[in-house]
Amino acid sequence: MNAKTVPPTARTRVRRIAERARHDRSTLDAILDAAHICHLAFADAQGVHCLPMACWRRADHLYLHGSNGSRLLKLAASGAQVCATVTHLDGLVLARSAFNHSMNYRSAVIYGVCERVADADKPAALDAFMETIAPGRSREARRGNASELAATTVLRLPLDEFACKVRTGGPEDDADDLDLPVWAGVLPLALVPRPPQPDGAFDTLPDYVANWT
Amino acid sequence: MNAKTVPPTARTRVRRIAERARHDRSTLDAILDAAHICHLAFADAQGVHCLPMACWRRADHLYLHGSNGSRLLKLAASGAQVCATVTHLDGLVLARSAFNHSMNYRSAVIYGVCERVADADKPAALDAFMETIAPGRSREARRGNASELAATTVLRLPLDEFACKVRTGGPEDDADDLDLPVWAGVLPLALVPRPPQPDGAFDTLPDYVANWT
Repeated sequence: MNAKTVPPTARTRVRRIAERARHDRSTLDAILDAAHICHLAFADAQGVHCLPMACWRRADHLYLHGSNGSRLLKLAASGAQVCATVTHLDGLVLARSAFNHSMNYRSAVIYGVCERVADADKPAALDAFMETIAPGRSREARRGNASELAATTVLRLPLDEFACKVRTGGPEDDADDLDLPVWAGVLPLALVPRPPQPDGAFDTLPDYVANWT
Repeated sequence: MNAKTVPPTARTRVRRIAERARHDRSTLDAILDAAHICHLAFADAQGVHCLPMACWRRADHLYLHGSNGSRLLKLAASGAQVCATVTHLDGLVLARSAFNHSMNYRSAVIYGVCERVADADKPAALDAFMETIAPGRSREARRGNASELAATTVLRLPLDEFACKVRTGGPEDDADDLDLPVWAGVLPLALVPRPPQPDGAFDTLPDYVANWT
């Protein structure tokens, strides 16, 4: 539990419905640790881009990786400012008026410049990624060999400038609407595991497969 | 079913693992219609931003809406180039080697400039949004009154320049790794409905609530 609160900057001060804002690391870490992907925004000569990327957190950084040949990775490694956003959609909020409909969600927006992870630190960073997906698997799967590691860029974005926004709970209807004969409430959504699909026959199942659903 | 294929531009030509690219409207429409939110990237004097937004498709546009006071909406309405991205994460792909691990996903990246929806067209656009959430509800919930509609900006982004990327199926291991004693396969994920949480007591349930899960 990291109770540290990071004061908002001009970019991370939440102005729309500011009571939903969170600037503490506990909230940020929980949102990031529940995610497998983020959306990374960056700009180049062709404009502003927004691409999905696998991501994982280690201590005070959000990690990204990809092929050395990726234009996104090359640009992000070049010192360009990026914005990485993670959003979990938790439900549709149905109010009695159209105007007060909303969604429940947890989002984290991180601004910064990526650092390139040194070659010597890549194996540990990638092992940590594997552990976030399947605890124990970093010791089971064949680890990257020299050429695979050399072909992979690993970047990390410091968790220094961020804003989280969280909405929970039911609809907030206007008092005048409360007696309208309209169903109101939350239609929850969750990203959940479905039964594993093995690629071949296996005598034993690792815990992260046996316990997946 | 819209079989139209839109040739890629310099921005939408997929270079990384290009065999996953799709440029047909059928694929795009299916990805957008399965989504409740997108991530919208844009740039201003403070840098590049990436924020989650509710979205819905009508014919040949992706629609967004929000408060007139939102800096995002103001900027997006001003003719700035934006990039809207929708991603569905469908599973973790566990290969026998760390390097060949992957994810199954469906993503759509749309580039363009938003158009402001005229006041006269806002009610129909917002009704369509409600219908994507809960079919029939646009005739049940209290519709926006004049001041609510006046406070809401509705934008639409033409589906003219886009790229989709889709990965399905199991791991693609190197031939030399196939005999390793490591579990391999897909750990699927899906965003699924959970039991409705009513805000009060209701005698009758609309179909979209009764059939939610």
